[in-house]
Amino acid sequence: MQKKRQIKVCLSPALFDLYSDRKSLIVVVDILRATSAMCAAFHNGVKTITPVSTVEEALEYKSKSDYIIAAERNGEKVSGFDYGNSPIQYVKSNIKDKNLVMTTTNGTRAINIAKKDHEVVIGSFLNITALVKWLNKQNKDIIILCAGWKDDFCLEDSLFAGILSQKLLDTKFFTCFNDSAYAAIELYINSKDDIFDFLSNSQHRKRLEHLKIISDIKFCLKNDVTDIIPVLKDDKLIIINKK
Amino acid sequence: MQKKRQIKVCLSPALFDLYSDRKSLIVVVDILRATSAMCAAFHNGVKTITPVSTVEEALEYKSKSDYIIAAERNGEKVSGFDYGNSPIQYVKSNIKDKNLVMTTTNGTRAINIAKKDHEVVIGSFLNITALVKWLNKQNKDIIILCAGWKDDFCLEDSLFAGILSQKLLDTKFFTCFNDSAYAAIELYINSKDDIFDFLSNSQHRKRLEHLKIISDIKFCLKNDVTDIIPVLKDDKLIIINKK
Repeated sequence: MQKKRQIKVCLSPALFDLYSDRKSLIVVVDILRATSAMCAAFHNGVKTITPVSTVEEALEYKSKSDYIIAAERNGEKVSGFDYGNSPIQYVKSNIKDKNLVMTTTNGTRAINIAKKDHEVVIGSFLNITALVKWLNKQNKDIIILCAGWKDDFCLEDSLFAGILSQKLLDTKFFTCFNDSAYAAIELYINSKDDIFDFLSNSQHRKRLEHLKIISDIKFCLKNDVTDIIPVLKDDKLIIINKK
Repeated sequence: MQKKRQIKVCLSPALFDLYSDRKSLIVVVDILRATSAMCAAFHNGVKTITPVSTVEEALEYKSKSDYIIAAERNGEKVSGFDYGNSPIQYVKSNIKDKNLVMTTTNGTRAINIAKKDHEVVIGSFLNITALVKWLNKQNKDIIILCAGWKDDFCLEDSLFAGILSQKLLDTKFFTCFNDSAYAAIELYINSKDDIFDFLSNSQHRKRLEHLKIISDIKFCLKNDVTDIIPVLKDDKLIIINKK
């Protein structure tokens, strides 16, 4: 029998040094809302997404042709930018064949931490089934990196990590390998009936509700809106399975 | 109505900087096995416990009268020491009125991180009911600091944090204030029927089973063996409610 591949969950970018092994494939997860927005943007025709860590880096692309720039801090679009990290905005806009440069509070930072020594793929509810199929075909151990909130644990990313872990376990090709993965699956078990309701205690959901963007939250929890797989190549996210 | 006091759970010492507020009371938790062993040792008559970070510091107390020294690394007693962090050893030994100096992989380190700017109290299943009563009487917000395993999340400390959080919520004097606390409570909900069985997936339980100390694990999960409350005063743990 083939040796099962490992799934580990890393609950915060601040813990990633403990996980870095220079060989596992990293699934970066920022459900509310960076990785959901990235999937939505690719699904709506964006050609590349460059995740940058600072607002200043994003602004350097402002006047370049075929580029659009996006910045979010503390849940809100940064002044001077046309886009933040609302996935719905990317669905509604004409962004076909544009290159998107994006900086967010947590998600783009997590990508930039992971990319140093690892292959990176973007995960969200929007592409979850396609992602499971694709991960199955890669012959690699997997670390699901939760972007969290300013280096701390967050409920929605960990819950997604649990759901993804369970779906990978269901394929029989994987085995869970750390306490965080087991804990994440426990969250999934308790959220099965109603994920939106389960997240009512999430600090970030409360933050977003305060900003009156509940429609965004509901959109981010939709399964299988797209089958695209965004992976990082040369500091840019591209769709690896473009038809 | 009196304002409810906050409960936060910090899932790893590596995240504690995000929580440090110079006013909350810190409950340090290392279920397998440092804080359980400390409660057992106090219950069996030890006068003080000095938590030190290194084996070298512990050895300095070796020849002092009325001192006993304990050191654990990677789940095993360090060579040259009479004690490790097995709580059962402290129950079976004649340690009345001795001063214990202890260093462990995770627990004593967590104490030393927390003590810089905060009042510290020791929590375990062994003293949980007494602890809830005592915390109720302190007019402070509470941070439950999970010692974890080498800076990473661990299942048993987080589970205990969930149980303690729920017991504090039940008193109506407290409110949960972060995602980690809610997640910890979800673990508690799923473990209710059989905590020992729930922890079968814990990496540290597996580590200890490998070391053939399953009786220790069962002992550490016993509720209310003692009603002592160990708090840190001048770098030493003492019993604050000594009769």
